[in-house]
Amino acid sequence: MSEFLPPIETLIEQFRRLPGVGRKTATRYAMAILDMPAETANTFAEAITEAKTAIKRCPLCNNLTDGDICYICADTTREKVICVVEDTRALMRIERIRDYRGKFFVLSGVLSPMKGIGPDQLGLDKLMERLQKEEVEEVIVATNPTIEGDTTAAYLMKLIAPIGIKVTRPALGIPVGADIEYADEVTLARALRARNPIT
Amino acid sequence: MSEFLPPIETLIEQFRRLPGVGRKTATRYAMAILDMPAETANTFAEAITEAKTAIKRCPLCNNLTDGDICYICADTTREKVICVVEDTRALMRIERIRDYRGKFFVLSGVLSPMKGIGPDQLGLDKLMERLQKEEVEEVIVATNPTIEGDTTAAYLMKLIAPIGIKVTRPALGIPVGADIEYADEVTLARALRARNPIT
Repeated sequence: MSEFLPPIETLIEQFRRLPGVGRKTATRYAMAILDMPAETANTFAEAITEAKTAIKRCPLCNNLTDGDICYICADTTREKVICVVEDTRALMRIERIRDYRGKFFVLSGVLSPMKGIGPDQLGLDKLMERLQKEEVEEVIVATNPTIEGDTTAAYLMKLIAPIGIKVTRPALGIPVGADIEYADEVTLARALRARNPIT
Repeated sequence: MSEFLPPIETLIEQFRRLPGVGRKTATRYAMAILDMPAETANTFAEAITEAKTAIKRCPLCNNLTDGDICYICADTTREKVICVVEDTRALMRIERIRDYRGKFFVLSGVLSPMKGIGPDQLGLDKLMERLQKEEVEEVIVATNPTIEGDTTAAYLMKLIAPIGIKVTRPALGIPVGADIEYADEVTLARALRARNPIT
């Protein structure tokens, strides 16, 4: 049922495109826009078009960039390792710890029969091309430790191992500082099985 | 800490203007915009500016309108009653039940010492002007039954009663269909005190 004037309905529909936003939240957002001074709302609209114009995906790794290739791919001092992540946020999270000195590759998605995402939709052509052109010693598949992330990692393993490049995943275990009493069973079991000698 | 490229930071800051949106949600929204095809994002931006251009506040009642005065104020068959509400959504909620046939007045806010909102910020000049010019038999103060809504209603009562116009509030009580076992104490107490003979 259309209950608002058409321009408001259109605005509500647009807000519903955002992740996790239903009709009720979208309506609240639309009302907030209508309550803003015209100039503020225009600045909002411009920020959307300007971000879309200025920000592109790096043609090599899919990282967000305002230049031709991203600052990571442009950095010739990076190690010959490619860390494959699910999205740009994972990339940024890893960059921020300033401990990893290799390169990245951002997938276009993860395998998910539920959402109908198959191997063709992960954007792997570009990754495989890089593995052939660049000198790469190792691919770290840092997809999330979820069913989808694990399945994607297994698929990448099968695809890359035959080329003779080492494929690894980040270690799973109890988080540093965590209370073992509250660790979930699966994590705890894996952590015990993957135990290490004290050095 | 600025962790994104400037155009992305700007977009995140704009999304934070929306009600209830913090840094994390704003970032998720900004990322969704960056993941959209350019055309989709432009349509989004246009919806904002177009809604702002097309939709105005009715000069008589502050209802949203795409014309000069809103369809309610333009309706000469409406009863000589003004229902004062906190916002446009309350107005639409009441309109949708198709039971109330009077007019409306949308406040610009409710009294709130916490948020520093005093009587001057409610936009009451316009309401008082209407009460003088229009033939009004009753003002129903349908602000929310909260401390702020009740305080605002009491203030309006003091302001309007001297003019000789009847001021009322909607009845409080147990909602139709509710389970008395789960009714809150305050509501239940008020409902019992305001009991009516069975007719």
